[in-house]
Amino acid sequence: MRINAIRPTFAIFKDKMSMESNKLLIYNSLLKKKEVFEPMHAPHVGMYVCGPTVYGDAHLGHARPAITFDLLFRYLTHLGYKVRYVRNITDVGHLEHDADEGEDKIAKKARLESVEPMEIVQYYTTRYHHNMEQLNVLPPSIEPHASGHIMEQQAFIERILQAGYAYESNGSVYFDLRKYARDFDYGKLSGHVIEEQLNNTRALDGQDEKRFPLDFALWKKAAPEHIMHWPSRWSEGFPGWHLECSVMSTRYLGEAFDIHGGGMDLMFPHHECEIAQSTAALGHESVRYWMHNNMITIDGQKMGKSLGNFITLNEFFSGEHPKLQRAYSPMTIRFFILQAHYRSTVDFTNEALQASEKGLQRLLAGIRMLDRLQPSATSTADVSQLQARCYEAMNDDLNSPMVIAHLFDGLRIINLVHDGKATLSGDDLAQLRQTYHTFAFDILGLKDEETGSSHQTLINDLISYILEIRQNAKQQKDYATSDQIRDRLQTLGVELKDRKDGTDWNLKV
Amino acid sequence: MRINAIRPTFAIFKDKMSMESNKLLIYNSLLKKKEVFEPMHAPHVGMYVCGPTVYGDAHLGHARPAITFDLLFRYLTHLGYKVRYVRNITDVGHLEHDADEGEDKIAKKARLESVEPMEIVQYYTTRYHHNMEQLNVLPPSIEPHASGHIMEQQAFIERILQAGYAYESNGSVYFDLRKYARDFDYGKLSGHVIEEQLNNTRALDGQDEKRFPLDFALWKKAAPEHIMHWPSRWSEGFPGWHLECSVMSTRYLGEAFDIHGGGMDLMFPHHECEIAQSTAALGHESVRYWMHNNMITIDGQKMGKSLGNFITLNEFFSGEHPKLQRAYSPMTIRFFILQAHYRSTVDFTNEALQASEKGLQRLLAGIRMLDRLQPSATSTADVSQLQARCYEAMNDDLNSPMVIAHLFDGLRIINLVHDGKATLSGDDLAQLRQTYHTFAFDILGLKDEETGSSHQTLINDLISYILEIRQNAKQQKDYATSDQIRDRLQTLGVELKDRKDGTDWNLKV
Repeated sequence: MRINAIRPTFAIFKDKMSMESNKLLIYNSLLKKKEVFEPMHAPHVGMYVCGPTVYGDAHLGHARPAITFDLLFRYLTHLGYKVRYVRNITDVGHLEHDADEGEDKIAKKARLESVEPMEIVQYYTTRYHHNMEQLNVLPPSIEPHASGHIMEQQAFIERILQAGYAYESNGSVYFDLRKYARDFDYGKLSGHVIEEQLNNTRALDGQDEKRFPLDFALWKKAAPEHIMHWPSRWSEGFPGWHLECSVMSTRYLGEAFDIHGGGMDLMFPHHECEIAQSTAALGHESVRYWMHNNMITIDGQKMGKSLGNFITLNEFFSGEHPKLQRAYSPMTIRFFILQAHYRSTVDFTNEALQASEKGLQRLLAGIRMLDRLQPSATSTADVSQLQARCYEAMNDDLNSPMVIAHLFDGLRIINLVHDGKATLSGDDLAQLRQTYHTFAFDILGLKDEETGSSHQTLINDLISYILEIRQNAKQQKDYATSDQIRDRLQTLGVELKDRKDGTDWNLKV
Repeated sequence: MRINAIRPTFAIFKDKMSMESNKLLIYNSLLKKKEVFEPMHAPHVGMYVCGPTVYGDAHLGHARPAITFDLLFRYLTHLGYKVRYVRNITDVGHLEHDADEGEDKIAKKARLESVEPMEIVQYYTTRYHHNMEQLNVLPPSIEPHASGHIMEQQAFIERILQAGYAYESNGSVYFDLRKYARDFDYGKLSGHVIEEQLNNTRALDGQDEKRFPLDFALWKKAAPEHIMHWPSRWSEGFPGWHLECSVMSTRYLGEAFDIHGGGMDLMFPHHECEIAQSTAALGHESVRYWMHNNMITIDGQKMGKSLGNFITLNEFFSGEHPKLQRAYSPMTIRFFILQAHYRSTVDFTNEALQASEKGLQRLLAGIRMLDRLQPSATSTADVSQLQARCYEAMNDDLNSPMVIAHLFDGLRIINLVHDGKATLSGDDLAQLRQTYHTFAFDILGLKDEETGSSHQTLINDLISYILEIRQNAKQQKDYATSDQIRDRLQTLGVELKDRKDGTDWNLKV
């Protein structure tokens, strides 16, 4: 089953920008520089991103690539591209310590929980999807499972064997790194020098079936206690971890496609091995732009499942973790991640999260205020530059912190108009609203968690009614009642701010 | 990759009943009678249910098997069984008109939408999962995709070929129905008589590669325009539709397992063919209890995708369909389905749905009232029988309408206690609450959509405050203000009911 043409994905946005009028620069990790993004078959874009190994709950470190490439997916779609976005689920072959020996991560968890490995996969995939929905991360166009593509992986191994860059040894098949390195540039992505690695690496137990210590498994013969295995002409076994991404990207995006993304920690050995596999099998590289998001750190160290220093997304949302002072909403997490450029590290602290939460509330309150502003005959404030600046920031390698800074800048104008110190014409007001909605909601993917509820209208109505009662009391000079109402609402979490021509209210976080 | 033992699934409930103290009767479609449910390897239960073919949005007809077997999954788990629940996703091989010739349903939709077939699968699977979550249908333990088990299906075909019950013809492999019918009882589930079918069926175009018109495809050679195909020793092709369920049930539940469920419309030919395939390959039947839910009808006809008379779940939830007078919430749909026994037909009408909606609101309002009742020193009402009656109804082939009737009966006592005309001791009150919560929420899987919101508390507080203001006005004999507040709340959808010692309120649906 093969399809070469990349077809349009389902449209998400109604308003689209022209892709021609925006010169999007993206940083290509392969060339270590920003390049103008030019897809091979515009308006179609093929994009592959490494997804999770589903043997535990997603943590903050998983949220970052998901949100980074969701931002890219949203922006490309907004620009009018038809994006086929493939993000895989690793459910087999990923061994402990990312090594060629040891227990499969999924199978180990299944053994510990006394369930079938596929029950582990189902359980954590469902929870991952739920977390992604909470973070407003759009589902990818295709989400292939490694275990669902065993035949395709075997066929890919045959191509590598036929090309002479792999060898069979004792029922396993290994990639012949020395031969590949003679013919191609191994290490071009990560900068690793193969001789250096040879000197730095001792031969490990059981690795004697490899010709060279850095050769990596394409197919592993299953040990008797290994519970996930399939038949093959080499042995009853399972595919190597690096293989699935080469195979499934080729399968769904073709032998050459536009973008491959993932976390920086996957650059070596995972992505380096992907390049080697694809080049060996296809005779050429398949990826045009490699993109890598930087890491989340905690206490100065990368947050990672294998390091044991992670905080899961569910723990963030509930606040139940010793390192968390309290709960943080999904949108706070999303905003926190978008407030840094994707190629910078982000250090987790409670203080930083609380600052993000405040910033997000300020932005959303501003947009709610914007939506209630009344137009005037003329404009006394200039809103013409804001939209262009936001596009400029996005076009500069997805500079989301700069977009957010521009949106904060614009709040000043909204406040002035609200306070009667400036005016906006109907056209300017409409453009300003469109800019905020497009960038905050469609592209940054934020959502207003407060107004999302079906009960919000009732809350608005009830509070308005209570404010009306208070207004009546005031008019009758019954200030005691008026103050009493203000204090009572305060205890319910509704904060009032009296203005000369009315009263504003806000829900406390 | 094979695991024979059925292992415990993830636990959902904290409170569990003993499975020994409940004699669960289930109607076995194979024997056409109710039998005591006795799993092969208690406390483990293996259960397989036919899931959707994901080429369109789920409609009311899809909700019924999902809810029926969710009820069974929940009840078995409540009884303390460790259930491995497998529900498949059909993403390949299901041809138009459920036939052996014609276009694949998924591939056809992909052609019409100009996308990759797996984009169709991903898109509709995500929407299906979302609908299931709205209906509070628990995810199954494993949800295998047909396209992810091509190797296993090929291996199963080899077993059938080796046993002599299939033959290759022009690159396709067909099940040899006449040979099977000589050795085994074909038609035992559905009652179809094979000679009768032979007389009733004319040979179809292109079916000449079959030896007998009713022989069905296990593997189909792909026509040049067919875009979903895999290599095999017979041809580049794809598996027959019936095969996946035999293969994936065996793969995840073993060669003999407890329960196979699905809609009654699948009994013939799908389930009959499954029995034939499994019996031919394994030498014995694999399913102990066959269970079938009845159909949803509309204007007297089965509601079905292929009949074109369906209303999707999203249309029910939004009200956007010419046949719908208005929107119905997911819980209304769930309650509507549970109000009929799963082996009865359910006819869709707006009147019936509105009656369900009212009934559900009455039940939930009763439970909210129950949760607010105060205990007394002694009981003047007898609540001891209610719980036993509910278990009795569930044990009688999942008689959910009877459970609901008992829960309605109990509302009488709750109302009496609320009105001060009866009392309940602390123990009785606790037992009554446990009965309602266990049956309404854990087993029937209802949820209180009103109190689900995080804003509910604020709404309660605001309304309570307004009622306090109204109470003050009344005490000052300011009945005009009191009436005004009542009328205003009425327009906001809040209905008041004055009682001698306070005021009750309800949100209008």
